[in-house]
Amino acid sequence: MRAKRLNVEQVGEFGLIERIRRRIGTVRGVKTGIGDDAAVLNIPRTRRAMLFTVDNVVEGVHFEPGTAPELVGRKALARSLSDIAAMGGRPDCALVSLGLTRHMSLETVDRIVEGLLRLAKSCRVNIVGGDITRSPARLFISVAVTGWSSRQGAVLRSTAANGQQIYVTGFLGGSGAGKHLTFKPRIEEAQWLARRRIAGAMIDLSDGLVCDLRHVLEESGKGALLFEEKIPVSPAARRMERRSSARALNRALWDGEDYELLFTSAKPADLWTGSFQRRFGLKATCIGRITGEPGMIRMESGYGQDREITGKGFEHF
Amino acid sequence: MRAKRLNVEQVGEFGLIERIRRRIGTVRGVKTGIGDDAAVLNIPRTRRAMLFTVDNVVEGVHFEPGTAPELVGRKALARSLSDIAAMGGRPDCALVSLGLTRHMSLETVDRIVEGLLRLAKSCRVNIVGGDITRSPARLFISVAVTGWSSRQGAVLRSTAANGQQIYVTGFLGGSGAGKHLTFKPRIEEAQWLARRRIAGAMIDLSDGLVCDLRHVLEESGKGALLFEEKIPVSPAARRMERRSSARALNRALWDGEDYELLFTSAKPADLWTGSFQRRFGLKATCIGRITGEPGMIRMESGYGQDREITGKGFEHF
Repeated sequence: MRAKRLNVEQVGEFGLIERIRRRIGTVRGVKTGIGDDAAVLNIPRTRRAMLFTVDNVVEGVHFEPGTAPELVGRKALARSLSDIAAMGGRPDCALVSLGLTRHMSLETVDRIVEGLLRLAKSCRVNIVGGDITRSPARLFISVAVTGWSSRQGAVLRSTAANGQQIYVTGFLGGSGAGKHLTFKPRIEEAQWLARRRIAGAMIDLSDGLVCDLRHVLEESGKGALLFEEKIPVSPAARRMERRSSARALNRALWDGEDYELLFTSAKPADLWTGSFQRRFGLKATCIGRITGEPGMIRMESGYGQDREITGKGFEHF
Repeated sequence: MRAKRLNVEQVGEFGLIERIRRRIGTVRGVKTGIGDDAAVLNIPRTRRAMLFTVDNVVEGVHFEPGTAPELVGRKALARSLSDIAAMGGRPDCALVSLGLTRHMSLETVDRIVEGLLRLAKSCRVNIVGGDITRSPARLFISVAVTGWSSRQGAVLRSTAANGQQIYVTGFLGGSGAGKHLTFKPRIEEAQWLARRRIAGAMIDLSDGLVCDLRHVLEESGKGALLFEEKIPVSPAARRMERRSSARALNRALWDGEDYELLFTSAKPADLWTGSFQRRFGLKATCIGRITGEPGMIRMESGYGQDREITGKGFEHF
């Protein structure tokens, strides 16, 4: 690649991450670094691995100007908590970086902080520090979170295996209608799955079902077969279908920011999906299975036909 | 305070931090949260405390457009490492959040990463993950770092005591001429001071000598007497004096971003300053002493007169 000729938009978010990952290589003492939802660090003399992640929200990218400040603060923290959930972990401490414009009202800052603290409290996360800087043009918030894996270890993206089924929680698509601001990170649910060793590999759905599934498949060297009729399309995606030409199914496949869990499991569904649903009031739906064809995602419709799904999901540039 | 009427600029960085700190209150299991250079977390079954900090750089605030990208990446990491140094700790892992504009060249990103990784390597810090998002207007980089205190514990801002002398490393003022981009975080130096229990309280000089000293005094409930002739004014500040009306001494007192260490010590200077200087090729200068008058900073000149220093240093808004 001739770096001089290319710009960020052409290489894309995942191209950049892969490039930096190759440049860094592997790191001693770090079980999992770049390439999962959170870094997994071995801490001597502790039984659990430490998890460490960061995520941003930027005005005009992750929320529109005019969004209720409470929801902006809430989302900034929720995104990072969702990353810890994706490892089957328990979040512990958070650092909050605020990039504020000069003329923002104190009331707005108070409301951002309020939304953030309310979620922190309900998820038992401690805000232990941070940083406030001026941002000349746009509000941004960056939240770094530490957490702890379950005793069974962190659930990675790279451990999907042949013979495992693929599950998602909840309903997918159309998050832009509101859920992207109000979603509840699936922390308890993911810990439940991790402690019972139900989840083989896991990720949170931030970039979209196909795109995040592809992350799991790439890290695991596997492929997937999806069952079209099983994809749990959200009511929001169906409502949006009525108003635009985008099919609801395509929204469920491609829309980002569902923040549901996608995981693989070798454990028969009838042994655990019932108790999962009773415990959390949340459906876990089997949407397909892992295959041995690296990088290949196929989708089977009711007529027994299957087609390959190509293309990428949401990228930031 | 009537929040509706005030904006961020009027309340200021430290006003905002204090406001959020009061809103959060104290947190169980956290030794030191907001109000020091890094959070200090107790990790069960480990002998050292975990340190956790985050810092940002924003284009147009911490560096000008056109700055060499290597130096921008380097500064982003160096600021956070300086926070860990201020606790007498050893940095361990870092997460890097990049907010990139769409049309930035890949070469620029590579050079940012290169500058960051080169400093990480020389300080034995592992880059274990991060996040890349689009930033509509300005480049920003947020770096979260974990570290470990020495066995003697983290050196706080709040432990300055009567009878202690006040020291700074290196030379102060005029950092804007270049040092703010090229400074070396005083990690080894601070660990040396912490392990020998030389440093009573410590902070890194990011906001300016008077302003950062004030942070120490506020957290400790003390005052300070400075000796004007002892302030180690940097050659850069002297050069700048020739070109503008700002006195070099004022630059040393008020300029931000020296990233030197300010610490207090009860240990007589002749017992350790010589070996410190031989070991690191860096001067530690006694510039005054802690007094019992809370919040009061006085400065004594050679004529035996002293005057109170009032006012605030650099704030972000």
